[in-house]
Amino acid sequence: MAVRALWYRAGTLFLIDQRELPARTVVRRLTRLPEVAEAIRTMMVRGAPAIGVTAAYGMALAYRQGTYSAHRAAEILRATRPTAHDLAFGAETVERAWAAGDDPVAAANRFRAEIVGECHAIGRAGAPLLRRARRVLTHCNAGALATVEWGTALAPIRVARSQGARLFVWVDETRPLLQGARLTAWELARERIPHAVIADNAAGHFLSRGEVDAVIVGADRIARNGDFANKIGTYEKAVLARENGVPFYVAAPWSTFDARRPNGRSIPIEERAEEEVLEFAGRRIAPRASHARNPAFDVTPAKYVTAFVTPSGVVRPSGLAGVLPQHRSG
Amino acid sequence: MAVRALWYRAGTLFLIDQRELPARTVVRRLTRLPEVAEAIRTMMVRGAPAIGVTAAYGMALAYRQGTYSAHRAAEILRATRPTAHDLAFGAETVERAWAAGDDPVAAANRFRAEIVGECHAIGRAGAPLLRRARRVLTHCNAGALATVEWGTALAPIRVARSQGARLFVWVDETRPLLQGARLTAWELARERIPHAVIADNAAGHFLSRGEVDAVIVGADRIARNGDFANKIGTYEKAVLARENGVPFYVAAPWSTFDARRPNGRSIPIEERAEEEVLEFAGRRIAPRASHARNPAFDVTPAKYVTAFVTPSGVVRPSGLAGVLPQHRSG
Repeated sequence: MAVRALWYRAGTLFLIDQRELPARTVVRRLTRLPEVAEAIRTMMVRGAPAIGVTAAYGMALAYRQGTYSAHRAAEILRATRPTAHDLAFGAETVERAWAAGDDPVAAANRFRAEIVGECHAIGRAGAPLLRRARRVLTHCNAGALATVEWGTALAPIRVARSQGARLFVWVDETRPLLQGARLTAWELARERIPHAVIADNAAGHFLSRGEVDAVIVGADRIARNGDFANKIGTYEKAVLARENGVPFYVAAPWSTFDARRPNGRSIPIEERAEEEVLEFAGRRIAPRASHARNPAFDVTPAKYVTAFVTPSGVVRPSGLAGVLPQHRSG
Repeated sequence: MAVRALWYRAGTLFLIDQRELPARTVVRRLTRLPEVAEAIRTMMVRGAPAIGVTAAYGMALAYRQGTYSAHRAAEILRATRPTAHDLAFGAETVERAWAAGDDPVAAANRFRAEIVGECHAIGRAGAPLLRRARRVLTHCNAGALATVEWGTALAPIRVARSQGARLFVWVDETRPLLQGARLTAWELARERIPHAVIADNAAGHFLSRGEVDAVIVGADRIARNGDFANKIGTYEKAVLARENGVPFYVAAPWSTFDARRPNGRSIPIEERAEEEVLEFAGRRIAPRASHARNPAFDVTPAKYVTAFVTPSGVVRPSGLAGVLPQHRSG
């Protein structure tokens, strides 16, 4: 019973509502573009590749509604969240098919299949890196929920496990929205993969004590030089991994690579509502008079990345520019 | 209306119940040693200097009860929490007075006054370091609640403000128990000091963007070479500060310095219940099948410390061994 974040059937996009996990598994049915845009904005579905595929199906649903131009539909989807490259990429992939007279539903299905295939390839490419690692740290959720199936960071863990590796996973809880404690732990618990949830603050402690053999994360946008945006806190873990001589891997499908962006400096960083920090499960944590800042992502410079795990294999940051053009139409 | 974490009057120790803040200000009245030990264990009162003073009054209450030896009372208090040096130091200071035939209540009052005076001195010593800083990051709560009055990390901020400096404070929320979002924000809000709460994950982001001019934290135990234990996550902030060329200060009274300990390697690290990570306000965050690890402290090597702010002034880590013996009986 592999996890699947979303699926499409006969005019309806089915999504696991990730805000309800792990307490409840609620499946939502979306049939119209505005519902899809809202699902992405409210993080009913999240994770760069998963929102890319959701946007692709959003285009397909817009086409079936008949009230949007391809251009307008893509514009609405792109406006939902700014950081993940996959979102625009998924929408634009279907937009091009639509404009060319191809069936947008078929184009969205192809896009989904491509992402799933790439994630499986990431798993096969990354598994050898983890074979000698016993204890792997991951941040946020870069699992099946974030990518439809397999995951990015979790794919090599799954494949290595299926090949007999005995891995233990440190799960950063990932405040403010707890995608680690809620979603990554849920995926690992379902598959009985040994793991421990830790406060994000504790990752450095376990790294410094030699209790982490490798760090692997996903990404929301990767620039040509290897700088990349990912969930807030990723930069901290990357610096701490290097400080402690622990390899730091970034796993992503091609839809996450932004080949037009030379470096990470100009990647747009979404700042979300301060209530995500000031409240917890609807209950106020901080004093009424206090405010918060809530950047949802940070940018990690390429120098902290040991290697990228791509569908074509493991690539050092310095080798990235060389492989990108072959895989990206632009 | 300065904040005061605890006070003693006529056989009763009054404590603000810090678990209830910021929603409610509840004052508890303790008259017996076991109540004091329980208050420390359950973190009704926390913060190294504050639990040192609480332990001193715990000895005074034990003396008044008449059913404990000085040695046994100190033993009970020392067993509550392992990491903070102040706890044993406060208990043993009163134990020595008791054993010498002095009045333990007077000894506890003197110890409290000494800590408050040292914290004020820390404020005066540290204020010049912050005068050029506009934006200061702090972790956990090292304020009046953690130290009776003034605070350690917050004392220089208070004194610099009273001298006209316009400071803005970044407040790490400090999972799992949220002492930053709950307690530091409460102290700052009361005094209308501008601040923003951030997820612990976001500190590195703001450091890397040049939006933090200095980091200042308290400590739970400082070894002779300057390695120090403090709330989990402190080590991460120290590494990130150095990586970004931002000064990192550690403020502490003499009771926090463990002159007998050559370095941080052997400092005992308390591991608390996993429910602190897995639950929030009684509500389960993570899947039922998931476990957690919950170290309450980490150790930061001295090489990451720009300077210690002590009651006698600002001291580089390399100068620490030279000043310690003059201030500590051992």
